[in-house]
Amino acid sequence: MSKVKDKILTVGIDLFSKKGYHNVGLKEILKTAEVPKGSFYHYFESKEDFGLQVINKYSSLGVVNFQRALEDETLSPKNRIIEFYAKMIEHYLNKECREGCLMGNSSNELSDLAESFSNVIAHEFNLWQDALEKCIVEAQDLGEITADIESRMLASFVLNSWEGALLRMKCEKTVEPLRDFINGLNILLK
Amino acid sequence: MSKVKDKILTVGIDLFSKKGYHNVGLKEILKTAEVPKGSFYHYFESKEDFGLQVINKYSSLGVVNFQRALEDETLSPKNRIIEFYAKMIEHYLNKECREGCLMGNSSNELSDLAESFSNVIAHEFNLWQDALEKCIVEAQDLGEITADIESRMLASFVLNSWEGALLRMKCEKTVEPLRDFINGLNILLK
Repeated sequence: MSKVKDKILTVGIDLFSKKGYHNVGLKEILKTAEVPKGSFYHYFESKEDFGLQVINKYSSLGVVNFQRALEDETLSPKNRIIEFYAKMIEHYLNKECREGCLMGNSSNELSDLAESFSNVIAHEFNLWQDALEKCIVEAQDLGEITADIESRMLASFVLNSWEGALLRMKCEKTVEPLRDFINGLNILLK
Repeated sequence: MSKVKDKILTVGIDLFSKKGYHNVGLKEILKTAEVPKGSFYHYFESKEDFGLQVINKYSSLGVVNFQRALEDETLSPKNRIIEFYAKMIEHYLNKECREGCLMGNSSNELSDLAESFSNVIAHEFNLWQDALEKCIVEAQDLGEITADIESRMLASFVLNSWEGALLRMKCEKTVEPLRDFINGLNILLK
C-alpha cells in the first residue's frame, strides 16, 4: 500500500473513532492528512469507499493482536481470553474512556444505511468471533470451560458483550462497565 | 406536554433511530413533523436540546415497560428478566433487525462530543440498570440466582451485553446475536 493511502486511512481511523462517520467531512480528512482532494480520489472512489476501507484497516490491525493474544502459549486458553480484555481496560484508561470500538460505533451508525457497510462490519466481526471461538474450544478441550456450552454461541455472546461494555463506558466516562464485563466473563467461562 | 411538541419528539425518535443524529438535518425533522421552523424553536433551544429531549423521551417510554415487565408477579423474578428479553426478539424481528436501541446508538455517536449527551444517556441507562438490579435482588432473595454475585455488577453486565447484542444484530441483519444473548443470560442467571 502506498504511504499516502496508508496515511489517509490512519487519519480516517482517528477521526471516525473520535467523531463518527457523518460528523467528519472530506475537508477535515484532507486537511488532517495534508493531502489534496485529487490524491484522495486517486485512492478512494467516494467517502463510502473510504469509510469501508477505514473499517477494514481498523479491524485488520486489531484482529492480528487479538489472534496473537489468544495463541499465547504461556497462558492457558481461558486465561488468554481474560488477560486480553483485562489489558484492554488499560488501553481505554489511556484513552480516557473515549472512542470505544470503531467497528461497534460503525455498526450502530452505518449498518442500516448501506449494505456495503453492514456486510463489511459483519464480515470483520466474524473474523474476531472465529478467533475467540477457536480459543474457547481449546479451553473446553482442556476442561477449563464446560463443554456443555456451544462454543460459537459463547464466542458471539462474549464478543458482543464487550461491545456493549464499551458503549456504556463512553457515556459513563469510567471503565467500571469494562470491569463489570470482566467479572461477568469470569462467571461465564466456567 | 403540547401535542405539537410531542409530535416533533416522536418524529425525532423515529428519524434518529433510523438514521442517527448527525445524519438527520433540521429540514427533514420539520418536513416530517409538518411544523414550521418557528414552532420547532418555540419548543427547543437548538438541535442539541432537541436531541437530549428525544433521548429522554425514548428512554422514559421504554423504562416504564421494562419496570412493568420486571414487576409482573405472574412470573418469578428470574423468568421476568428472561421473558422481557425474549419478547424483545419479536420486536426486533418486526423491525427487520434495524434501528437497535436509540440510547446505545446515541452513546456511541454522541457521548464523546458533548457532556450534555453523555450525562443524559448515562442517567437514563442507570434508571434501567436500577430496575434490573431490583429484580435480580428479588431473584437472589428467592434463591433463583446465586447470592454470591454482586447484583449491581450483574445488572450492569446484562444491560450492557444486550446493547452489544443489538449492535451486532444491526450488521448481521439476523436476530441470532439476540438469541445468543438469551442463551448467555441463561448461563449467567444461575
